[in-house]
Amino acid sequence: MTDGTLPDPSTTTRTRIRRIPENSVPKRAALHHVLDAGLVAHVAVIDDERQPYVVPVAYARRGDEVVFHGSTGSRLFRELALGQPTCLTVTLLDGLVLARSAFESSMNYRSAMVIGTARRLSDDDELDALRTITEHLLPGRWADCRHPSAKERAATMTLALALDECSVKIRTGGPDDAPEDVIDPVWSRVWAGTVPIHESYGAPVRSDECLAEVEVPHYVQSWRRS
Amino acid sequence: MTDGTLPDPSTTTRTRIRRIPENSVPKRAALHHVLDAGLVAHVAVIDDERQPYVVPVAYARRGDEVVFHGSTGSRLFRELALGQPTCLTVTLLDGLVLARSAFESSMNYRSAMVIGTARRLSDDDELDALRTITEHLLPGRWADCRHPSAKERAATMTLALALDECSVKIRTGGPDDAPEDVIDPVWSRVWAGTVPIHESYGAPVRSDECLAEVEVPHYVQSWRRS
Repeated sequence: MTDGTLPDPSTTTRTRIRRIPENSVPKRAALHHVLDAGLVAHVAVIDDERQPYVVPVAYARRGDEVVFHGSTGSRLFRELALGQPTCLTVTLLDGLVLARSAFESSMNYRSAMVIGTARRLSDDDELDALRTITEHLLPGRWADCRHPSAKERAATMTLALALDECSVKIRTGGPDDAPEDVIDPVWSRVWAGTVPIHESYGAPVRSDECLAEVEVPHYVQSWRRS
Repeated sequence: MTDGTLPDPSTTTRTRIRRIPENSVPKRAALHHVLDAGLVAHVAVIDDERQPYVVPVAYARRGDEVVFHGSTGSRLFRELALGQPTCLTVTLLDGLVLARSAFESSMNYRSAMVIGTARRLSDDDELDALRTITEHLLPGRWADCRHPSAKERAATMTLALALDECSVKIRTGGPDDAPEDVIDPVWSRVWAGTVPIHESYGAPVRSDECLAEVEVPHYVQSWRRS
């Protein structure tokens, strides 16, 4: 596994990041697909000493932006709200790729990267983003659960990052073995292929504080991954 | 899902990052556990304009460092090799947490963050790191596959990041509902609990170029997730 078949970082410099125009349907569709399939994003911010920090956040796509939230007490979120440049990346692993060579061994994955500057949301716009995040992660839940109180809203910072500068990388299929390895008397005897990775939900586990007669909601029972 | 129960980013500023001493066995053990359980890390680097980029990379823990690799043609990797500060974060999702309130809804997860400056590896040290990465992702494979050639080695950059400045965050268990929600006549009728997330491997898929008589290796058949 000595190649760089996870997203080639050379495409992650701003000069190589491509704006995905609305009319480039396949690429924008792929971007939306990846963002809609993920549950967690990794978001970066840097401090005054050029030290980056990468933290996982719950997020959702809302039209042509991603929204995510954190604590108003979080220094990272405060920096982002001040307009620090950021990067949000979502990666889904789909499989291990076993080539005859370590070099061509790899992973199948889908990854989306968004760079830019986040803007802080407020009022109804923020509430809509919070609803969108909840519904992305827990479809059907918003109609059932208690919505944020004024106090809870005050403790929450919600940010939006436009899908303006983005990249999408998707790897699928089997190994790309060197032709000479495929016909080599030794290496042609080595098994080659892929091992799929699946993500799934287990059976819901009732909280100790939840009344036994309250049934698992239908929307929870319908959730599936992969 | 309006709280910040994914890792509180306030702990991600350098002032809050704690060095995990060797003799703090529980925390260092937790750090190793998370790094050993993950398959992909998200690594950040910034450009001259303070724009961060976050890319997924294959990695492995090797003793008290993490090793990862990319292409020597990658601008991101070249920047890291020049000593740019970086951050490497590994996150494993373990479940959805459904509280009665959106605010207390959350996820169960394990996350490790390492900050510092990477060093470039060479010679036998690099080869050992490449072996370690392959064996972390594909245990048993190194003895079976073709090792990197001189040309492949020249195209590969391998970096190590010491586990000096780190943080580990792990959330487990059920929702932390506000006491008043638990006894509220309305909200006490809302189901609360967790939905576990599992990652698993599917049946190996033979490459079209792989001879039918070559059996799936025992080490591949033994791989498990979660």
